[in-house]
Amino acid sequence: MLLRIFNRSSLWLGRAIVVILLVGLMALAVRFFQIMVTAPPVDEGHQSAKLEYLAALPQVNRDVPNIVVVFFDDLGWGDLSSYGNRLIETPEIDQVAREGLLMTNFYSASPVCTPSRAALLTGRFPPRTRTNRHVYFPDGSTVGILRRMLGWANALPREEITLAEVMKHAGYRTGMVGKWHLGDHDGYRPNDFGFEYFFGLLFSNDMYPLNLYQNEEIVIEDKRVGGLFASERDELQPIPGEGVDQRQLTARYTEEAIAFIESSKDEPFFLYFAHSFPHVPLYASDDFANTSRGGTYGDVIEDLDRSTGSLVSALDRLGLSENTIVIITSDNGADYNGSPGNLRGRKGQTLEGGQRVPMIVRWPGRVAPGSVSNAMAMNTDLFPTLLQFSSLPMPSDRVIDGRDLSGLLQGDDVSPHEFLYYFPVVETLPDAIRNLEFKLTEGTGDLGRNRMHLSRLEGDTEAHDVQNLFAEDAASLTQLLHAKQDEIRANPRGWISR
Amino acid sequence: MLLRIFNRSSLWLGRAIVVILLVGLMALAVRFFQIMVTAPPVDEGHQSAKLEYLAALPQVNRDVPNIVVVFFDDLGWGDLSSYGNRLIETPEIDQVAREGLLMTNFYSASPVCTPSRAALLTGRFPPRTRTNRHVYFPDGSTVGILRRMLGWANALPREEITLAEVMKHAGYRTGMVGKWHLGDHDGYRPNDFGFEYFFGLLFSNDMYPLNLYQNEEIVIEDKRVGGLFASERDELQPIPGEGVDQRQLTARYTEEAIAFIESSKDEPFFLYFAHSFPHVPLYASDDFANTSRGGTYGDVIEDLDRSTGSLVSALDRLGLSENTIVIITSDNGADYNGSPGNLRGRKGQTLEGGQRVPMIVRWPGRVAPGSVSNAMAMNTDLFPTLLQFSSLPMPSDRVIDGRDLSGLLQGDDVSPHEFLYYFPVVETLPDAIRNLEFKLTEGTGDLGRNRMHLSRLEGDTEAHDVQNLFAEDAASLTQLLHAKQDEIRANPRGWISR
Repeated sequence: MLLRIFNRSSLWLGRAIVVILLVGLMALAVRFFQIMVTAPPVDEGHQSAKLEYLAALPQVNRDVPNIVVVFFDDLGWGDLSSYGNRLIETPEIDQVAREGLLMTNFYSASPVCTPSRAALLTGRFPPRTRTNRHVYFPDGSTVGILRRMLGWANALPREEITLAEVMKHAGYRTGMVGKWHLGDHDGYRPNDFGFEYFFGLLFSNDMYPLNLYQNEEIVIEDKRVGGLFASERDELQPIPGEGVDQRQLTARYTEEAIAFIESSKDEPFFLYFAHSFPHVPLYASDDFANTSRGGTYGDVIEDLDRSTGSLVSALDRLGLSENTIVIITSDNGADYNGSPGNLRGRKGQTLEGGQRVPMIVRWPGRVAPGSVSNAMAMNTDLFPTLLQFSSLPMPSDRVIDGRDLSGLLQGDDVSPHEFLYYFPVVETLPDAIRNLEFKLTEGTGDLGRNRMHLSRLEGDTEAHDVQNLFAEDAASLTQLLHAKQDEIRANPRGWISR
Repeated sequence: MLLRIFNRSSLWLGRAIVVILLVGLMALAVRFFQIMVTAPPVDEGHQSAKLEYLAALPQVNRDVPNIVVVFFDDLGWGDLSSYGNRLIETPEIDQVAREGLLMTNFYSASPVCTPSRAALLTGRFPPRTRTNRHVYFPDGSTVGILRRMLGWANALPREEITLAEVMKHAGYRTGMVGKWHLGDHDGYRPNDFGFEYFFGLLFSNDMYPLNLYQNEEIVIEDKRVGGLFASERDELQPIPGEGVDQRQLTARYTEEAIAFIESSKDEPFFLYFAHSFPHVPLYASDDFANTSRGGTYGDVIEDLDRSTGSLVSALDRLGLSENTIVIITSDNGADYNGSPGNLRGRKGQTLEGGQRVPMIVRWPGRVAPGSVSNAMAMNTDLFPTLLQFSSLPMPSDRVIDGRDLSGLLQGDDVSPHEFLYYFPVVETLPDAIRNLEFKLTEGTGDLGRNRMHLSRLEGDTEAHDVQNLFAEDAASLTQLLHAKQDEIRANPRGWISR
């Protein structure tokens, strides 16, 4: 009996399934097409405010400092010899540290690429810039379309104000060399966000297509057949197919960066040098291949070290060092490769190893040589700090989460932060907070578990939960974290009504 | 038209779905019932061989050493002060180390509980003992039934030979205090595998039902309503409901262990003291609550330290120390809580932090006080080593993967192992191999990625892949790992035909 019903219905069942699938596919196709032709949404009110703010910026004099930000990709807390690595040798970067300040409690604003870059360039936390959902993908890729179908941003919102835009409007010459990773939609590339010159990649070096750009033009095209998800992860294969030879990427970037400095030396300039390495796949130049005791990863770091040395030498040679702030840091902690030093966790985690990164600042005459600071800071702080050094006003229609480090960098060893907040990879709200002594996390996701954990950071590596001993600290930090969560939930973009 | 077809078919579609679900549920119910009444399969040939072997064992004299194995649950590489912890104080265990040997390259056979326990008791790798699929669950629980439906073992196979069975048949008095975790089916509990006395839990202290046994009798019954998956993870709640008060568990175990030693002092004895802690949920006795600088986890470790001190004092008091081997180790690395020291990874991972564990051996007169050994060894080695100390023959119908450490423990600082193999949590085959200098892994699963990685263990923490520098070592280790994989694939149980 049961079988008879089943048999009689099976024909209709089959037809129904086909129909459902067809209708579903059609709806998806329509939505795909819609998404393909839709530009990212713009908040017109804050876009106007942005334009007003930029137009009203004062023009800087020649005596403001030049700015060079060297931003490594996935460089871990323990990857430089100045930060304790015993296998990899980074004499050039170590020398920069000796000539300036080395920070031991400096953080990226996110344990992953896109939000950290947005934070550096805007001074704002990931949800402010709609970079709180992992990383951006090529707009036309499967993941890019899916992201947009989900209502997730896939390009830095037009109304965000970048450091490059501020500096350009204030009279700096602005250039970017390296990895953007803040969107590839028309009108959302580096030249559209304040960089007068751009040379580099729009995405990570494991993503497809790996096209090398000079401004809006592709100078080396990726001729491989790309994967479905625009992510190749071919670190274990030899050189990628036809296109960019990644072995030459660091050297090529370095030439471009130095050329930009040379051509800009007579005016104030801002160079954002965002290396593609040590993100996987790993390729060092021939000079460094198989030379480091730290393996291929070490080769790549030592190649980056030489690059940094060349850059600083160029500043010296051009007589620019005295008037140039050089900042060296990383977008997040070490990935699968590389060393988090003695910190717990890696890239992708709000554990210390995912977000605490090297930070070195050189500015002869202003930043004391050989100084070390344990004060807390985050890469969101660069925006207000650099504006301060050039006496530029801050925007008033939006929250800038970063704080001014100008005092701290010049020897006043006090952090402007009483607390730092940690934003996980795909959530909108922070899941951890630290003060000078403690870090409270609501859920690290480590070993698949989200649980409250209070670490005393001095002398521990987030191994020991001391909630029972410091219940009051745990309670007050929880309260502060919840207050910050409430604040961001209520106003994720951090708009200030005027 | 499409809609009309869809509407006409929808009634039949609904009926068909109901029928399919009903038939599926009935089939599942039948299978559930089958599984419930099915005993674990027995390999009758090797069961006979086991019985023959046990029956033929010689009887030991009074002068063989007594054996005390203290086996902690989830104690990490960095959790003891003798292994570098700076917050938790373990003076008693440290003192045992000073009176004997401390090993720095000792491993559990698995990064998780059940297979590690099976390995310690049988001398065999996880697939040999069918413990290669994570951990056993209560037979009647959802997970237990699902495991058996998948054809996975849920109790140590009857034909496996445990250290307890060997010792008992050779004339030792055998006792076990603590956590079993090798099955709860009738005929598969500690008393069925050679322990003349048992006091403890059949599962982890986060699993339901948490019944406390004395031999085959439940002395404290868990009166809570159990969860669906027999796993409660209630570390963040206060004391569990009606049943065992876990705050008293360590003290209670310790009393039982000392009572067993006292009652056995006139004959050779083997005590397997498998603590439930520091596995979560964490409960220290009232004496230790909120006293350790390492938080609640530290309290628990310091409670365990006192327990170990009491145990060793009892041996001293009874005049047994000279003739008793005390072995202190752990079943795997630190879990979410606890410290892996400077090793990468934690419980569940074949990274060093998942499997390298403390190992301390005290045997006054035979093991030199204050000695430290860097020689490689694994908990599979205890079976052949302890048989050697008592001059007992090994079984001949099966592979014993462990090696005899009797020379190593007595000062001959050479490992009997040229290589160690690492078995991941739910796979049958090893995914990593180490020798004195290198560790080659085919896939750690760390950050969700499985990739080949060659670490030079001295002076590194598995952060740097040096395949490019040591290609020959990588190739030869890969070959050896593959050969071991082939060997285990062909004969997972390691049977030797006679």
